[in-house]
Amino acid sequence: MPGAGRAAGVRRLRPQRPQEPPARQDEDLLLAAAYVSDAQYNRNVPFETSPRAIRLYYFYNHWTMQVAIYFFICVDLSLALFEEPALFPLPFLATSIAEVLCLTAFFGRLVHFAKVTPQMVFWKDTKNICIMVTIVLTLIDLIIYGSLEAVSIHSIRWSRALRPVFLINFPESRQIRRTFRSIRNTLPDILYVFLLFMFSVLIFSLMALKLFGVRSLKTVEGLPYFTDILEIAFELYVLVTTANSPDVMMPAYNFSRWYSLYFITYIIINTYIFMSVFLAVVYNNYRKHLKNEILKLAYLKRRKMIEAFNILKVKVGTEFVVTEAQWKRLAKIVMPHISSPHLELLLRISDEGQKGHVDKLNFLRLADLLNIQVVAINIRRHPLEDWMPRVYQSSASLSVQRMVRHRIFVWVYDVIILVNAIFIALDEKKPFISNAEWLFLSLYIIEILLKLYTYEPRAYFGRKQFWNWFDMLIIIAALVATVANATIQSAGNYNSQQILDIVLILRILRLLRIIVSIQRFRLIVTTLINIGPTILTFGGLVLVVYYVFAIIGMEAFQGKVRFFDPNFTTPEAQVCGNPALTGSAFARDHYCKNNFNDLASSFIVLMELTVVNQWHVLAGGFALVTHQAAKLYFISFHIVVVILIVNIFIAFILEAFFVAYSLEKSEVETAIEKKIQELGVGVQEEEMQDGKLIDNMDAKDSGFSGDDGDNKRKALKGLYFRIASKKYRTVDALLQQMFESEITPEDEGPSLDEILNLSPSDIYPKNPSFGNSA
Amino acid sequence: MPGAGRAAGVRRLRPQRPQEPPARQDEDLLLAAAYVSDAQYNRNVPFETSPRAIRLYYFYNHWTMQVAIYFFICVDLSLALFEEPALFPLPFLATSIAEVLCLTAFFGRLVHFAKVTPQMVFWKDTKNICIMVTIVLTLIDLIIYGSLEAVSIHSIRWSRALRPVFLINFPESRQIRRTFRSIRNTLPDILYVFLLFMFSVLIFSLMALKLFGVRSLKTVEGLPYFTDILEIAFELYVLVTTANSPDVMMPAYNFSRWYSLYFITYIIINTYIFMSVFLAVVYNNYRKHLKNEILKLAYLKRRKMIEAFNILKVKVGTEFVVTEAQWKRLAKIVMPHISSPHLELLLRISDEGQKGHVDKLNFLRLADLLNIQVVAINIRRHPLEDWMPRVYQSSASLSVQRMVRHRIFVWVYDVIILVNAIFIALDEKKPFISNAEWLFLSLYIIEILLKLYTYEPRAYFGRKQFWNWFDMLIIIAALVATVANATIQSAGNYNSQQILDIVLILRILRLLRIIVSIQRFRLIVTTLINIGPTILTFGGLVLVVYYVFAIIGMEAFQGKVRFFDPNFTTPEAQVCGNPALTGSAFARDHYCKNNFNDLASSFIVLMELTVVNQWHVLAGGFALVTHQAAKLYFISFHIVVVILIVNIFIAFILEAFFVAYSLEKSEVETAIEKKIQELGVGVQEEEMQDGKLIDNMDAKDSGFSGDDGDNKRKALKGLYFRIASKKYRTVDALLQQMFESEITPEDEGPSLDEILNLSPSDIYPKNPSFGNSA
Repeated sequence: MPGAGRAAGVRRLRPQRPQEPPARQDEDLLLAAAYVSDAQYNRNVPFETSPRAIRLYYFYNHWTMQVAIYFFICVDLSLALFEEPALFPLPFLATSIAEVLCLTAFFGRLVHFAKVTPQMVFWKDTKNICIMVTIVLTLIDLIIYGSLEAVSIHSIRWSRALRPVFLINFPESRQIRRTFRSIRNTLPDILYVFLLFMFSVLIFSLMALKLFGVRSLKTVEGLPYFTDILEIAFELYVLVTTANSPDVMMPAYNFSRWYSLYFITYIIINTYIFMSVFLAVVYNNYRKHLKNEILKLAYLKRRKMIEAFNILKVKVGTEFVVTEAQWKRLAKIVMPHISSPHLELLLRISDEGQKGHVDKLNFLRLADLLNIQVVAINIRRHPLEDWMPRVYQSSASLSVQRMVRHRIFVWVYDVIILVNAIFIALDEKKPFISNAEWLFLSLYIIEILLKLYTYEPRAYFGRKQFWNWFDMLIIIAALVATVANATIQSAGNYNSQQILDIVLILRILRLLRIIVSIQRFRLIVTTLINIGPTILTFGGLVLVVYYVFAIIGMEAFQGKVRFFDPNFTTPEAQVCGNPALTGSAFARDHYCKNNFNDLASSFIVLMELTVVNQWHVLAGGFALVTHQAAKLYFISFHIVVVILIVNIFIAFILEAFFVAYSLEKSEVETAIEKKIQELGVGVQEEEMQDGKLIDNMDAKDSGFSGDDGDNKRKALKGLYFRIASKKYRTVDALLQQMFESEITPEDEGPSLDEILNLSPSDIYPKNPSFGNSA
Repeated sequence: MPGAGRAAGVRRLRPQRPQEPPARQDEDLLLAAAYVSDAQYNRNVPFETSPRAIRLYYFYNHWTMQVAIYFFICVDLSLALFEEPALFPLPFLATSIAEVLCLTAFFGRLVHFAKVTPQMVFWKDTKNICIMVTIVLTLIDLIIYGSLEAVSIHSIRWSRALRPVFLINFPESRQIRRTFRSIRNTLPDILYVFLLFMFSVLIFSLMALKLFGVRSLKTVEGLPYFTDILEIAFELYVLVTTANSPDVMMPAYNFSRWYSLYFITYIIINTYIFMSVFLAVVYNNYRKHLKNEILKLAYLKRRKMIEAFNILKVKVGTEFVVTEAQWKRLAKIVMPHISSPHLELLLRISDEGQKGHVDKLNFLRLADLLNIQVVAINIRRHPLEDWMPRVYQSSASLSVQRMVRHRIFVWVYDVIILVNAIFIALDEKKPFISNAEWLFLSLYIIEILLKLYTYEPRAYFGRKQFWNWFDMLIIIAALVATVANATIQSAGNYNSQQILDIVLILRILRLLRIIVSIQRFRLIVTTLINIGPTILTFGGLVLVVYYVFAIIGMEAFQGKVRFFDPNFTTPEAQVCGNPALTGSAFARDHYCKNNFNDLASSFIVLMELTVVNQWHVLAGGFALVTHQAAKLYFISFHIVVVILIVNIFIAFILEAFFVAYSLEKSEVETAIEKKIQELGVGVQEEEMQDGKLIDNMDAKDSGFSGDDGDNKRKALKGLYFRIASKKYRTVDALLQQMFESEITPEDEGPSLDEILNLSPSDIYPKNPSFGNSA
């Protein structure tokens, strides 16, 4: 990234030529458009400014290329499903060919990137080095493994654990990398707390050894209790996770009541206090770095827009501006499918005084303007009203519409859903109940029809009318499910269990409609849905960690524990096919299916370890079939996933919540939003939601026609900017917006090097105030 | 509290008389001192301003009265130990007499309070009503129970669950009440999330019933799996707490791999997302209300100081001031044991220009000034240096001193401690090891002696030199322990297990010395110790909730489960004396001692429930011996303690951490601190800590003597204000200080009624900025 500065520096030095040849102008426009587009999508790839490089850069950013690279990453990662130990075995030749294909694709992408970006930047970027090293290592591993396999020696495909490197290091996975950075930044802070915590565990272990070791107590299983220091340390570590909570205490507690004090002290200090401190440290760092990264993004965006302006600017009077024609061509390149009324509208906002050019401040807003959604609203009347106005406006029809709009209508349907829930819970074998099913379905369909009759259908099912679509889809799914169920039952044979299960779930999911009708529920769910995209980032992060641990786990534990059909009751099945497990808690709890014999099973075991409970039983079981050192694998998984990643997840949810909360209480408006509102062409999402839109439209419309009859305004009629509702934004976007509303339009921000070297402590005010500290 | 305004209002209306009779003046002084004292300790009890009421108020605040009331509260609460089911049984007559005694004491305290506070205020305060109602109810219960007992009918002592009311409602328990308020304020916000969460659990229960109910699967215990909707809902609620994590999934997972998807979805939605949202809601509310309460406290303090000023003010020139004589008398009343150099120093700060009077702004600081610790430092040389200067200053002695101050000295002792740890872990039966014990001890004692030789002993063991004391105490304890151990072992008989255990623990605790020598560890521990007082508040809160649940639990479950000695292996002992437990997980895990047969056992069970793991086994066990509805008791305990209280605890730790963090990065100085620093009479705690103090003193001292030879300064020589280090303050104090440094000295704050009705939303800025939202 440091190259962006350099490349930009080069550009700025080039003297401005007022009259350039058309080809030159086109190239400039293309370059400017690349900057604007990068600003729009917050891309921060430094690229060469030669015309060829810019064209390559456009191609590099094309969505097909991105889809292709993700496709190859998916293929590469999913190879583990087909390699030994495989869920669906394929010969080594097939998987290795597929892998080489993927590697070629990754290499191709890298070469493409090298062509786009300045050489210096390319070789300084650790991401690229990482990818290249991984490609080479994978090839070496493939060759060694293949040749050993050819002479029938079985070795380890160790490079498989490196595959997630591709997912992390391609520029598209910015979010995952950021979370990784967040973890890395947290490590130094957390290290000392962790050491102190381990020290505390050790002190308590020593105490336990001295206190209980000599009492020759027995555990429930009849094993000696607390006699080995390593064993004790492990048990006490497990106690921190609460997984063996009362059990580990019971022998001592049974011996003497006073010993419970030891365990209570231990739990208060280590489980409650230390674990909270871990969360605090992780959260604190997350917060700090989030702010820093967003600051960087905002400044980089500003800089890119300034670059674009500097390329296109011409001098008019005393100030530099961009001509209207240039501005339009630029917008067309950045957003090829933009409609002309839309473009006209953007221009109106950017060139307020209609002077035929756009000044610098207004130009800088272009990226944000392009990001604002525009919605064309020119349907105002119900089609039925046009088609048969007399019937639709008749008193009967009007009273139906009034009824549907009434609150009681919603309540009645809430009651119906609840009754439906009770019917679902009852035994469906009875004919009365299965017939009731049809009654409920028809009631729901009537409801939808009535709503379509009352509200304008195209507005009701407008884009982003999430809750209406949700409602509709649930009913359709329920209808399909019930019909399918009836068909299957009449066919008389339960031929496919999976289909039946899906049908059952769909029928129950219709109860979710109750969420739609309770406003507070809708709000909570909307917040959760907003968090969705970032939860996916966490999904990516968890996938990476799981994948690495799964590969290691499969190499270490494959085949050690086997699952037999529950109907098998042979002694071998009782101990998961491994005599070492005889009498262990692992076998007693029937955990045989929790094994590392294929990728899917491994992921489920890792998920169980993430949930923490009974993880010591799993760890103990795999330690028995291999070696006690296997417990280290499970402990390190706990530290990485539960102490770091889950805490970051919690930190993220807390932060999302606070940002949402502080917005609920107030208004953050960017300059653009204010401008749009001033022009009277803005529509709040909420208004669309609640059906208030149409009334609003009419009111505004009359305003329009009573206006000075401006031609341009006429052209815009029916076209409005949708200002996304506060509720529908992500934390990152909100924070960035907040920050951008704080930097004045004149502020060009610090220099590029300064931006890239911003450290979190620079943001913190030297004198914290009461307001932002609590 | 609203009365404070009224009472204050009355005072303000009284015209100022410049020449009052001496008795009148004394009364005024007493009243003003009461206000200052209240401001100093943040007390907010409205009191009558009549001279008699003020004297009563002084008596009311006397420490003996407070100790007495806490003593009676303790007695009242601990009665549960002696009542049926008793740990130490006493006859009903004895406990009931003790209880009546306590009730009389509470009533007496209440009457005292009624005499102090205005009548209107007294009767409007729900706290007082609560206490009175509880006293009456307890008496009624005692009479009914006693008379039924007399005719040998056993009834329930239901009023025992009300006893914590006394702990909560006496004005001294402000902190516990605040936490309760925090919980109450959180309830409306959390309610909808909780409803949505329960709705989600129900939907999933219905799905489970439909998916798994018809498959006739069996659990590990061979019971039918997921066939009853209530049973399923309970199991899924338990899954949210992760307590039955893989077990509840295993039968379905064993049947088909795909069913794991159901459980993974459930865990992600309910365990991870909903539980994080609960934490977020609780934290958000905690934060909001904390700020609000601190704002109130700060304004109330300011108002009280203004009241005091208005009582004592006289007009000098154009402004109102308090004369030096009055000011001194006031300070003497507020702090009777103040030394005259200390008083002189305070006056110097308050009356900077030495005009013989204190102006309003300086007067308002009095309460804070009194709160700042003053330390007299007039020892600068080591006593040995005075005693035998030649020897102490000899080159051998100096090199010893240099050695002790050197880093390597610390490191050597760290290594010694670690070696000691290994020796402790080894078998102590071997004579080599038990002899090594003496070696280590003598090494530690030599260390302390060397340190005393090098550093000035009275400075080394100064007040608040926490770490030095800590170090010393640990070594003394280890010495005592080793000697005691040797004595016991030479006596040859392990006569007292408890003493031996304590000895063992003391020997191990000496390893804590390693914390003293690692700076980062010391910092973390100091932070945790600072949190201490507030953790005690949580202790009080937990005690209240535990007590109520323990009393209910004892009434419901006493005697249902019995504990037999572990050596008993009769069938009865195997099922905890209750055949209903045959084959249950409760009996299998040997949980018999987890019962409600006395207060101590109940508390331990409740602690285990707080830790969550295996709580469903406990709940299941007690449901078996009584009724399935008993599970509601356990679920409600989980909701109250784990979802509310533990989350508030985490929120508190997070907040403490952030405040500490934002201070680490910066300096918050109140006006007073600045003033003290200006005068050059301030000492930072850290300086004392690190032994830098003495050098500082010398430097400053020369400054003093080179000064204008002011007499007062001479008098102050050797006396310095200790400005408490940032590290040693509590969150509340820090926040209050931050806020106070933001309100200007001229700002008298809003009116009293406005203060008391402040709502959290008033504090939030209308336009949140980037700085305080992330």
